[in-house]
Amino acid sequence: MALPTRDALTFPDSQRQPIVPYLPSSSPSSSKPFVTLTFATSLDSNLSLSPGVQTALSGPESKAMTHYLRSEHQSILVGVGTAIADNPSLNCRLEGVGGYGGEGLSGQPAPIVVDPRARWDVQRSKCMKLAREKRGRAPWLVTSTPVPHETAHTLETLNGGFLHLGESPIDWRVLLRHLGMQGFRSVMIEGGGTVINDLLSPQYFDLVDSVIVTIAPTWLGKGGVQICPHQRTENGVRLPVGRLKDVKWVPLGEDVVLCGRPER
Amino acid sequence: MALPTRDALTFPDSQRQPIVPYLPSSSPSSSKPFVTLTFATSLDSNLSLSPGVQTALSGPESKAMTHYLRSEHQSILVGVGTAIADNPSLNCRLEGVGGYGGEGLSGQPAPIVVDPRARWDVQRSKCMKLAREKRGRAPWLVTSTPVPHETAHTLETLNGGFLHLGESPIDWRVLLRHLGMQGFRSVMIEGGGTVINDLLSPQYFDLVDSVIVTIAPTWLGKGGVQICPHQRTENGVRLPVGRLKDVKWVPLGEDVVLCGRPER
Ligand SMILES: NC(=O)c1ccc[n+]([C@@H]2O[C@H](COP(=O)([O-])OP(=O)(O)OC[C@H]3O[C@@H](n4cnc5c(N)ncnc54)[C@H](OP(=O)(O)O)[C@@H]3O)[C@@H](O)[C@H]2O)c1
Ligand SMILES: NC(=O)c1ccc[n+]([C@@H]2O[C@H](COP(=O)([O-])OP(=O)(O)OC[C@H]3O[C@@H](n4cnc5c(N)ncnc54)[C@H](OP(=O)(O)O)[C@@H]3O)[C@@H](O)[C@H]2O)c1
Repeated sequence: MALPTRDALTFPDSQRQPIVPYLPSSSPSSSKPFVTLTFATSLDSNLSLSPGVQTALSGPESKAMTHYLRSEHQSILVGVGTAIADNPSLNCRLEGVGGYGGEGLSGQPAPIVVDPRARWDVQRSKCMKLAREKRGRAPWLVTSTPVPHETAHTLETLNGGFLHLGESPIDWRVLLRHLGMQGFRSVMIEGGGTVINDLLSPQYFDLVDSVIVTIAPTWLGKGGVQICPHQRTENGVRLPVGRLKDVKWVPLGEDVVLCGRPER
Repeated sequence: MALPTRDALTFPDSQRQPIVPYLPSSSPSSSKPFVTLTFATSLDSNLSLSPGVQTALSGPESKAMTHYLRSEHQSILVGVGTAIADNPSLNCRLEGVGGYGGEGLSGQPAPIVVDPRARWDVQRSKCMKLAREKRGRAPWLVTSTPVPHETAHTLETLNGGFLHLGESPIDWRVLLRHLGMQGFRSVMIEGGGTVINDLLSPQYFDLVDSVIVTIAPTWLGKGGVQICPHQRTENGVRLPVGRLKDVKWVPLGEDVVLCGRPER
């Protein structure tokens, strides 16, 4: 077994414990993948200072938690906006997973990028680099246009893949059904704003099994990428868009982690 | 001594304890009143579903906490938008304060309404009614126009008052200086959106001593009254508007209460 690598993270058992009930179980109850929404916001519900800018919001403990969550999911999904803005690693750097002390790619989730127009430069992305180094899985692309032949070939060689689905915007039900058919039993949806707001809307909220939000004690101000779903109106009366039940608030460093399940 | 009245609230000692360090001390260190910002938001940082609509956000425990906080301040301030939309009581209904089991008006804060154009119908307001019933203090008005003679007379008869300050928008430094001169050593600023966003802005954030925010696990959606201050830019670079230090997160029912102090 390889030794733990220098940049591996640890997330102590005592901090895992309150979160465990919100994670995918090993015996899934449906063919739809278990969906966890996770993201970090400021007090004014911003993911970042402005579109296309990565903003350090949460502290080191929350970062370690994110990697623990990743180790507990078979896939991580982001929109192409995030893939381009952040060039994220989308792997798991928790000590003991494959590439970070563990065997092969065990505990490494597959990155999935929703990129209808195939705008993302997959070949030069950080997550492709990590896949080549065997420190992460190769990504899956979800597109509305055919994937260039060369990209498709590289992805398949590294055990990644692509899903060429219908017109954009892609229906999340269709997307999740296809992920299920590919064998993914869980997906952790990490952002960005467009993706999260979509899944919090009444149209899709029933697809979500678990929500894990980190809130940092800061205000970013107007003009940021904000989590604030479209408003909901019934018979001309405005109603809250969605609420969580089975709520747990877990202080973590300077931040708080909110765990809950959508109230149907 | 009068018996506790039916609608009195209790807030247990165990829940008071974590909040105490964020309250005004009995030996103030400056002539400026101690300023506590307190409000309740949804996860998407909304105070209400839409302007002029009162939205039940937080649970019964948070309500009791608000009344505990009121008992620990000499005054409560809101903008006229809130005074008109909510017709709030702005008194303290904690068991044991004056009017709710206690003597006279002990523990009752003075309501202060910032109403530059004197739009609020003071005479028919709920807080004036409570003042007449000796279950709350009479309000103070902060205006940019002279207060009608009759209103001024009623207010003074009931030991309320008015401050006729400069042009609107009124400078919060000037306003707080005048409150200090009237003998108020602490003020709890409760809303609404315009007032809170103003005080979170870099121009005024240094006036704030303590922040106590209740967050409810719900999303209200776009179009609400939102806490999201104006953006801050230095040398063309966007920066966070403000951050809290000495942070404590206190779960309370389904909600969480965030206590902190502005980081200078
Ligand atoms: N704080 C956090 O936790 C966190 C996490 C992730 C990201 N972020 C931040 O969020 C920002 C990016 O957010 P964003 O809203 O700009 O981008 P995003 O949500 O990552 O991606 C949006 C794009 O993805 C595609 N897409 C999403 N849903 C789709 C659907 N149902 N069907 C078809 N295409 C779909 C569309 O691409 P097309 O435009 O090509 O149609 C859309 O414009 C960055 O600043 C990043 O740093 C923060
Ligand atoms: N969830 C909570 O904790 C909470 C608490 C309080 C209120 N609320 C909600 O908030 C909403 C009301 O918010 P809002 O933003 O509309 O109103 P607001 O902040 O209560 O009042 C705004 C008004 O107050 C006056 N004002 C404020 N600052 C001033 C200054 N520096 N100088 C001069 N005048 C000043 C102005 O009156 P003029 O327009 O006359 O110039 C301004 O339009 C309601 O829906 C209410 O239910 C929620």
